[in-house]
Amino acid sequence: MFKLDSRLHNDTFFVCDLSLCRVLLMNDSQFPWLILVPMKNDIAEIIDLSEEEQITLLKESALASKAMQALFSPLKLNVAALGNVVRQLHVHHVARFENDCAWPKPVWGNQPAVAYDSNKAQALVKSIQQWFKDNS
Amino acid sequence: MFKLDSRLHNDTFFVCDLSLCRVLLMNDSQFPWLILVPMKNDIAEIIDLSEEEQITLLKESALASKAMQALFSPLKLNVAALGNVVRQLHVHHVARFENDCAWPKPVWGNQPAVAYDSNKAQALVKSIQQWFKDNS
Repeated sequence: MFKLDSRLHNDTFFVCDLSLCRVLLMNDSQFPWLILVPMKNDIAEIIDLSEEEQITLLKESALASKAMQALFSPLKLNVAALGNVVRQLHVHHVARFENDCAWPKPVWGNQPAVAYDSNKAQALVKSIQQWFKDNS
Repeated sequence: MFKLDSRLHNDTFFVCDLSLCRVLLMNDSQFPWLILVPMKNDIAEIIDLSEEEQITLLKESALASKAMQALFSPLKLNVAALGNVVRQLHVHHVARFENDCAWPKPVWGNQPAVAYDSNKAQALVKSIQQWFKDNS
């Protein structure tokens, strides 16, 4: 059974499951930020997935990127698999703006997260769920 | 004709051209660091490529990741398309180690680059070229 890393679990809201990946919303109101986690255990690198799974990840990542563009109209997307802190493979999709608090630096390790107001988070999760429902 | 962004040109050494991407070695001796640049103009996001090109990028990115593992045995790979500073689509592949100077933070925007000694860079480029020749 797939087991999500506890840090990822604690730092995010569940959005939906696609065919390979669980979609999570990062609980940081400073940036629209989706994380895709392939639902496979003991995988740290993209190349640890089979070739077929890598292509599915690519397609689901493209879908997440399109969701970010449709919902937030960012200046730039940051798409990244880092994993220096949480080793379980997860792919960040961050919508970036020239006036966000980290620009042009990356979002990781530069400033503490600012949690969403819980009503705002619920509404945001709902709108992202709806987008995936309509587009996948 | 494909035009490489001048900042990418100035900050890197040419390694080789694959079918879609130009492979560059970042001139920063603190981290083994390859950059893949799809040889298409006016592309900023992965999803600006056609689906076929995205799959080729995925395969060439996997090859770059395998090169990094084979040549440097990193603890973790950081694979990322950011583009906040240089907008031309380019995908970083950074070999990370627990004792590198940025660990566990990302490498971008945290410390200035330290250029390679030119003999060392030449030897490194040669070994990476040889790896791609033997494996692609």
